[in-house]
Amino acid sequence: MARLTRKSAKRAAPRPLKQGYGSEPGFPISLAMRAGDFVFTSAQGDHEFDPAKVVYDERGLVVSDGNSLPPRSVADETRSTLRNLEKALKQAGCTLDDVVDASVWLRDPRDFHQMNKAYGEFFTRNQPTRSIFRIDFMFDCRVEIKVTAYKPLVRRGRQ
Amino acid sequence: MARLTRKSAKRAAPRPLKQGYGSEPGFPISLAMRAGDFVFTSAQGDHEFDPAKVVYDERGLVVSDGNSLPPRSVADETRSTLRNLEKALKQAGCTLDDVVDASVWLRDPRDFHQMNKAYGEFFTRNQPTRSIFRIDFMFDCRVEIKVTAYKPLVRRGRQ
Amino acid sequence: MARLTRKSAKRAAPRPLKQGYGSEPGFPISLAMRAGDFVFTSAQGDHEFDPAKVVYDERGLVVSDGNSLPPRSVADETRSTLRNLEKALKQAGCTLDDVVDASVWLRDPRDFHQMNKAYGEFFTRNQPTRSIFRIDFMFDCRVEIKVTAYKPLVRRGRQ
Repeated sequence: MARLTRKSAKRAAPRPLKQGYGSEPGFPISLAMRAGDFVFTSAQGDHEFDPAKVVYDERGLVVSDGNSLPPRSVADETRSTLRNLEKALKQAGCTLDDVVDASVWLRDPRDFHQMNKAYGEFFTRNQPTRSIFRIDFMFDCRVEIKVTAYKPLVRRGRQ
Repeated sequence: MARLTRKSAKRAAPRPLKQGYGSEPGFPISLAMRAGDFVFTSAQGDHEFDPAKVVYDERGLVVSDGNSLPPRSVADETRSTLRNLEKALKQAGCTLDDVVDASVWLRDPRDFHQMNKAYGEFFTRNQPTRSIFRIDFMFDCRVEIKVTAYKPLVRRGRQ
Repeated sequence: MARLTRKSAKRAAPRPLKQGYGSEPGFPISLAMRAGDFVFTSAQGDHEFDPAKVVYDERGLVVSDGNSLPPRSVADETRSTLRNLEKALKQAGCTLDDVVDASVWLRDPRDFHQMNKAYGEFFTRNQPTRSIFRIDFMFDCRVEIKVTAYKPLVRRGRQ
């Protein structure tokens, strides 16, 4: 991540830092976005999505999103999801230690304890605020997570 | 949008910039809110809401919110919704180009592809992060969107 | 809340301000988190949660979360929820007046008007943006709310 000195800031255009990182084929999104001192991520799960193979039930809920992932516990899904977020944050110059706020969604409330325990392995001090709800996913997964990180760029001369 | 020079900032009260814009009759909310370098919006859809005419089903879900809008595709709802957000952002001195993070909610997961395509028309580069879920709306609509924009006020003397 | 003067900022480590406040037993979260000029809260409701006593229905929804709270109106739940958020914000040096964005979730859309009225008692001017959805809670409550506040630390020499 480039350091922004007061001098280079003066020379640079006054346009402030806003930069997207990563993408997902077929989706008009970035996986992470730096905006000033903050980095946002898209909600992520441990899933694949194949539009040609997706199957809906009569209520329109996703029965299968066409992925070929093996069955796994919600704890493992949680860990994979957080590792996916870690990768996206890394592209934007952050780690999970910089996360300040998280949203967690579960398909089944009974998965709460398993998810909670796996989640806690990743956040052991100065823990982010969190919101958690049961939801119907667009994709075939049991958990999705989105985070906001705070990681100011170092600006010499201001500190 | 007023420019804040270092001089005027010195003269002005030290109170930092926080300002709501727009409102919706009967709702104690702003449609957009500037807080420092960021602008938040309320979640918006392409809907009207007439409390006197709203009809709920036996589960409490909204069958009709009393609006008189014509039937339209989810793509058109998406476009109208983004134009509504654009108007709210404009009041706060931003455009959709300044959006860094978005949340999208759909009533029916089968609307995903149509929504996704219409959404992509508005965000073609440096695309915001996004989260998307199936949800039950309080209102009679198929899609709602909320965005966060990043648009620092220009402060002379700092850049 | 400590004042950060330019002098002390120079002497202090360049690490920017990020600090969690409050916790909930058994949950790896903070109730409020300051990140620079912003303060985030966890979603809160007026509920207790006793993992040993929680009861789920056949769909996995929470029928009882083991709390011993008396029955009360959604208006009272809303007020208690906002007072809980107020306490969390206070630990981080903020009040409800500093809130710029809110998310509200309701179990039953028919509670909208009662919630809306009680909510409006707390936000009478420069009202935060808001998003509101029907959702299935992980806990036995009718309303949950999460807020983001904007309350810059005073930095002498910058204003």
